[in-house]
Amino acid sequence: MEELKIFAPATVANLSCGFDVLGCCLDSVGDEMLIKKNDLNEVRITKITGQDLPLETNLNVAGVAVKALLKKLDSNQGFDIEISKRIKPGSGIGSSAASSAGAVFAVNKLLEEPYKVKELIPFAMQGELLASGNAHADNVAPALLGGFSLVRSYCPLEVLSLPVPPDLRVVVLHPMIEIKTKDSRSIIKQNVSLKSAINQWGNLGALVSALYTEDYELLGRSLQDEIVEPVRSILIPYFQELDKLVAENGALGFGISGSGPSVYALCKGDENAQKVKNAIEVFYSDKNIDFDLHLSSINKQGVKIL
Amino acid sequence: MEELKIFAPATVANLSCGFDVLGCCLDSVGDEMLIKKNDLNEVRITKITGQDLPLETNLNVAGVAVKALLKKLDSNQGFDIEISKRIKPGSGIGSSAASSAGAVFAVNKLLEEPYKVKELIPFAMQGELLASGNAHADNVAPALLGGFSLVRSYCPLEVLSLPVPPDLRVVVLHPMIEIKTKDSRSIIKQNVSLKSAINQWGNLGALVSALYTEDYELLGRSLQDEIVEPVRSILIPYFQELDKLVAENGALGFGISGSGPSVYALCKGDENAQKVKNAIEVFYSDKNIDFDLHLSSINKQGVKIL
Repeated sequence: MEELKIFAPATVANLSCGFDVLGCCLDSVGDEMLIKKNDLNEVRITKITGQDLPLETNLNVAGVAVKALLKKLDSNQGFDIEISKRIKPGSGIGSSAASSAGAVFAVNKLLEEPYKVKELIPFAMQGELLASGNAHADNVAPALLGGFSLVRSYCPLEVLSLPVPPDLRVVVLHPMIEIKTKDSRSIIKQNVSLKSAINQWGNLGALVSALYTEDYELLGRSLQDEIVEPVRSILIPYFQELDKLVAENGALGFGISGSGPSVYALCKGDENAQKVKNAIEVFYSDKNIDFDLHLSSINKQGVKIL
Repeated sequence: MEELKIFAPATVANLSCGFDVLGCCLDSVGDEMLIKKNDLNEVRITKITGQDLPLETNLNVAGVAVKALLKKLDSNQGFDIEISKRIKPGSGIGSSAASSAGAVFAVNKLLEEPYKVKELIPFAMQGELLASGNAHADNVAPALLGGFSLVRSYCPLEVLSLPVPPDLRVVVLHPMIEIKTKDSRSIIKQNVSLKSAINQWGNLGALVSALYTEDYELLGRSLQDEIVEPVRSILIPYFQELDKLVAENGALGFGISGSGPSVYALCKGDENAQKVKNAIEVFYSDKNIDFDLHLSSINKQGVKIL
């Protein structure tokens, strides 16, 4: 196999109570990438459409992730990477993670799978390190594995896949103001009250239980965040109003997607998700802020070969 | 029904990664209580054997819990409570919780069950408030419900029951130095680093997953605590040595039971649990510290009628 075309999915990280440890994979939002072997012994980003991103390999998250993989394999195989970028950088739905995860997934396939997909996470995390200054796994893990990923431990890295309740839908609103993950991380306090931390791990434990028992209402109640959301939500236009709006329209829960500014609502079933999406659309239409709005199932597969 | 004799079980709270939100119920360790209706319109602690504890109703956790229940019911029914106390107060395996939970369970039965068992938790928590200055639920919930209890939220109170892997065994060592929960709480810092908190909720999420999937090894790896254990373990004689010893003997994991000084080891199967128990016994025998040592299954029922 000389080349591979893939779908690299967007992801929603944190899911309110799972800062830095939890994420889920979207189905209808993502980039396309074409990865080809070359005979030049170098990794090149040959084309990027849709967004203005660096073509220089060492400044591109896909380039850095692939180079980390090849270095570990001690391989000098060259690759050309084309990215059709549909996830906007800085949107908070794992734009850098999609590129990093997609690139290492494809390169691993083209090299006849020296690694299992799960073993690719650390390489894709190198892309996150470049993008945000922090090698977090809560976007790249679900982008690679699909479904819900939980990072039990960063050192050593251990990632679990959690079950996906079948009727779960995600509505994502991206208000087009750019917040860089790096900036969004810098406003978070490095110490938290024990009381808030206790609430957070109580909710995360309950969320995991809800995924196993397909208890949608419990899942919704667990989407609480009193540590990061109070700070980051200030940067997101009409956050409180949206929270109220989606609750009134029957969403299970609501919060910030990753580092924002995108926000997500979890819903049960297509009908409710469509209702929530419509309500957001009507509300945001007269706010003089450009926005994207997505409705997606949970992608249980992760990166897909096209 | 005029009287009821019950078994009020000991419990292991926190389980390392679940400070204040997680606990499990023991099977072979607990108190016996005899609760009888009286015609005096008052709640009396008529007898306590085994330990020196207050007979004055308002200073006794069982008395306070029962009075909270009766007040809510607007009932002036009187009760006599006899406690055969086998769980040592201050041992860290839910001594006060057993008395509070047992008493409200029995009184509720004798009143023909105005409440479901789960609804008794807030009354039993009033006993904990008296005992430790903090109305925590991570002992009284598993004492009442059996199995593993997770407190998703304290306000409003929401407690979940989690599944019990069938081969799970608990070895508990109680080194007989008394640490009052109140004192043990006072040494905990009220602010924690975000980094430690992230590790803690990653581990708690993984522990919940392990209970559903019966993944004993994952369960063991999840028993990490970098928030409370580093401080509280200092008070426990030979904590580090015990940690190493039980790991060498194949225990799944190890930590402080509740506020200590008891420590617990989770084991898979009776044979391994017995081996771990024996190793602890040999190690502690020449340390000039009196100790109790228990081996128990997880009690899936909670308080039992005898």
